[in-house]
Amino acid sequence: MSEVRSKAGLAKSVSSILNKLNTTQKNEALLAMADALVSRSADIIEANAEDLRRGKEQGTSPSLLDRLALNESRIEDIAEGLRQIVQLPDPVGDTLEVIERPNGLNITKIRVPLGVIGIIYEARPNVTVDAAGLCLKTGNAVVLRGGSSALSSNRKIVEVLHEAMTHTALPKDALQLIEDPNRSSVDEMLKLNGLLDVIIPRGGSSLIQNVVMNATVPVIETGAGICHTFIDASADPAMAEAICINAKVQRPSVCNSMETLLLHKNFAESHLEELAVKFQKSGVELRGCEETKKLVSWVIQASSADYATEYNDYILNVKVVNNLDDAMDHIAAYGTKHSECIVTESQDNAERFLQGVDAAAVYHNASTRFTDGFEFGFGAEIGISTQKLHARGPMGLPSLTSTKYVIHGNGQIRQ
Amino acid sequence: MSEVRSKAGLAKSVSSILNKLNTTQKNEALLAMADALVSRSADIIEANAEDLRRGKEQGTSPSLLDRLALNESRIEDIAEGLRQIVQLPDPVGDTLEVIERPNGLNITKIRVPLGVIGIIYEARPNVTVDAAGLCLKTGNAVVLRGGSSALSSNRKIVEVLHEAMTHTALPKDALQLIEDPNRSSVDEMLKLNGLLDVIIPRGGSSLIQNVVMNATVPVIETGAGICHTFIDASADPAMAEAICINAKVQRPSVCNSMETLLLHKNFAESHLEELAVKFQKSGVELRGCEETKKLVSWVIQASSADYATEYNDYILNVKVVNNLDDAMDHIAAYGTKHSECIVTESQDNAERFLQGVDAAAVYHNASTRFTDGFEFGFGAEIGISTQKLHARGPMGLPSLTSTKYVIHGNGQIRQ
Repeated sequence: MSEVRSKAGLAKSVSSILNKLNTTQKNEALLAMADALVSRSADIIEANAEDLRRGKEQGTSPSLLDRLALNESRIEDIAEGLRQIVQLPDPVGDTLEVIERPNGLNITKIRVPLGVIGIIYEARPNVTVDAAGLCLKTGNAVVLRGGSSALSSNRKIVEVLHEAMTHTALPKDALQLIEDPNRSSVDEMLKLNGLLDVIIPRGGSSLIQNVVMNATVPVIETGAGICHTFIDASADPAMAEAICINAKVQRPSVCNSMETLLLHKNFAESHLEELAVKFQKSGVELRGCEETKKLVSWVIQASSADYATEYNDYILNVKVVNNLDDAMDHIAAYGTKHSECIVTESQDNAERFLQGVDAAAVYHNASTRFTDGFEFGFGAEIGISTQKLHARGPMGLPSLTSTKYVIHGNGQIRQ
Repeated sequence: MSEVRSKAGLAKSVSSILNKLNTTQKNEALLAMADALVSRSADIIEANAEDLRRGKEQGTSPSLLDRLALNESRIEDIAEGLRQIVQLPDPVGDTLEVIERPNGLNITKIRVPLGVIGIIYEARPNVTVDAAGLCLKTGNAVVLRGGSSALSSNRKIVEVLHEAMTHTALPKDALQLIEDPNRSSVDEMLKLNGLLDVIIPRGGSSLIQNVVMNATVPVIETGAGICHTFIDASADPAMAEAICINAKVQRPSVCNSMETLLLHKNFAESHLEELAVKFQKSGVELRGCEETKKLVSWVIQASSADYATEYNDYILNVKVVNNLDDAMDHIAAYGTKHSECIVTESQDNAERFLQGVDAAAVYHNASTRFTDGFEFGFGAEIGISTQKLHARGPMGLPSLTSTKYVIHGNGQIRQ
C-alpha cells in the first residue's frame, strides 16, 4: 500500500476517538505540542538548516529561503500560535438548531468534526504546525502534504509533535505527514474519496488550480485574489489615497492586496496624477488604460491580460471608468470574488456596490487588506475561501466542522 | 458554442439581476408559474404522452413509466408544490452575524444566492418544476439537465414556465433546460467552472457517482443510503418491531429506508424468529449472517457484498452482533453516513450510539424514514446531502445560499 493511502487510513482509523475527546483533552495536547516545539527547537533548527542548504544548492531565491528559515524566535512564535488556538472556543458539540416536531420527535443539529482533512501546501514550515493545531482543535485528523523544499523541517516538526502527543489523549495517528516528495503523492491525495473528507490547498494559484481541477475529494478553494478598489467621483481624496496606497503597498505579496485601481473619470481628472506619483514613490509600477495615459503620460499601457493577473508584487493596473456600473462590470469580468472596495461619500453608490458586487468580502471606505481571520476577530484562520460552498471568506474554526442531526424519539414511525 | 455553455452563460448573465429581486417579486413569479402549469396542463399532458409512447416502445418498465406519467391531478400537485415554496421564508438577505471591531469596522455576514446551480437528474418531470422553484426562490439561476426519457415533458414544462416568467420581474434566462440527450452534455456541465457555482445530482447511485468522480465544479453529493437499524438487548420489543418494519417496508424505494437490520444477540435469541416471519409476511426477502441462520433456518445466507448494497427494494440483510460496539463497527464499515438508528431502553447506549456513529442523521427510537426536509419541518427539500461540506442531511432553502461579508468603514487602513 502506498504511503499516502496507508497514512490516510491511519488518520481515518482514529477519527472516532478524536470525535469523543473533550475540549480540555484537546487543549492539553496542543499545549504539550507547543512546549515540545520550544524545548526541541535546536533539533528543529538543525533539520531546517538541511532544507536551507539544499535550497541554496538548488538556487532557491533569497525571499523563498527567508520564508523557509526557522530560528528560535520564529519557533517561539509558531508555538505561541498553538497556544492561541488553545484559547479559542471549541465549536465541536455546539447546538445550532433545535426542532420539536408535532409528532414528538426532537431534532437537534450539532457541530461535529469534518473527519479527516488533507492540507496541501508549499514551502513554509509554520503551516505544518498551524494547520495541525487548527484541525486537531476541531477534532479532525489531518494529513499534511507540504512542499518538498521544507521536508527535513516538516519531518522533524512532526516527529517532535508526535512525541508530545504520546503523553496526551490525542492519538498520534491523528497527525500524518506525507514525505513522498513526488507530485504523484499529491495526485493520489486528490482522489482519496472515502479516506479524506475534504482537501484544503494553501499556496499559489497553480497549486490551487491543480487541486480544484483534479480532486474528486471535496475541496475548499482558497486564496486567489485579484482585488479592486474603486474610487468614486464623490470620494474623500485623502481617504481614497490612504486606502488605495494601503491596499497595494502595505503587503503586496498577499491575496487581499489590490491588483487594479478603478477611478471615476471625475476623480481621475483632478487626482490621478498626484496619486500616480505617490505610487511611483512607493516603488509601484503602474500599468494604465488609455484614459490613464492621457492623464499621466509616463504610465505603461495595460493589456487585458494584466487585468487578469494576480501580481502579488509592486505592480498595479489603473483604469478610468465612466461610472459605478462600468466599475462593477470590470470587477465582474476580472475579479476572483475575493475582496472588493468602493471609496465614496455617496451612500446610494456604496449600497449599490456592496449589494451588486459578488465577492467574499465587499468594503465601503476601508482597505481590502482587512480580509483575514485575525482582523475579523476569529482568532485563527485556516485560509480564505473564494468559493461559495461551505465557507466563504476568512475561515475560522467553525469552517473545519460539519453538522449532524441527532433525533430523539419514543417509537415514532412514518405514516 | 455548445448548448450547455451558451445556456449556462445566459443563466450567469442574469444572476446579478436575480440577486437584486425582493421576496415579493420572486413569489409573484412563482405563483404565475404555478398558475400557468395548471392552465396549460393539457399541453403538458400531450407532451408527456410522447415520452410515454417512446418509453413503451423502448421497453421501459411499468414502474418507471408510472414515475414519468403526468395527469391533471399530478400537475395540480406540482403547481401546489410551487405555491408551498412561495409560503416559505426567503433566506436571502438574512443577517447571520454582526462583528464590531475595535478599529470601528462593522462586519456583517449576510446570506446571498449561490449564483448558478446545475441540477442533473433522471426521469421524473416533477423535479423540473420543484428544482426550478427552490433555486429561483433563493435568487439562483438554474441549469436543468433531466433524463432524456422525460425530454418532451420537460421541454413543454419549461416553455410554459418561461411564458409565465415574461410577465414577471424574474428574467426567463434564469431557468435553462439542457435538451441535448447525449451523455456528453452532462460531462460538459461537470467541468463548467466559472459558469456553474455548484452541481446537485439527484438520482440513483450511478448518476451520483459519475458526478462526484468527474466534476471539477463543486458538488453537493446526495442520496445514497445504506441505512441500519440496531436493536439493542434492552429494546422494547413492540417498539423495535414497529420501527424496523416501518424503516423497511413503508417505502423501500427511497434512500432513508433500512437495508440492514442489526440485532443484539440477546434480543435476537428471543425475538428474531417472530420478527423474521413478520418481514416475510410483508414480502421482504431476508439475507442473514450465520447466527441469523441458526435462529431462523430458512433465511438466505448474506454475503459481504449484500451488506454493501443499497437494495431500495423488498430485501433486507439481517446480522446478529455481540454488542453495541460490534453494531457500530458494522455501520462504520458499510454505512453511507445517511441515517442510522438504535432502538434501546438504555440511555447510555443511546448516547454512545448517537455520539459515535458518523452520519447525517442518527436516531434513538424512531424510524430512519423521517430523514426528509418535510418531516424535519423545512417545508421543502432539494435533496439529502450525504457529504460533510456545506450541508448535511435534508437540504432546505438555506442550503441553496452562500454568504458574503459586508464591511462598513470610515477610512480604516491596515497597520
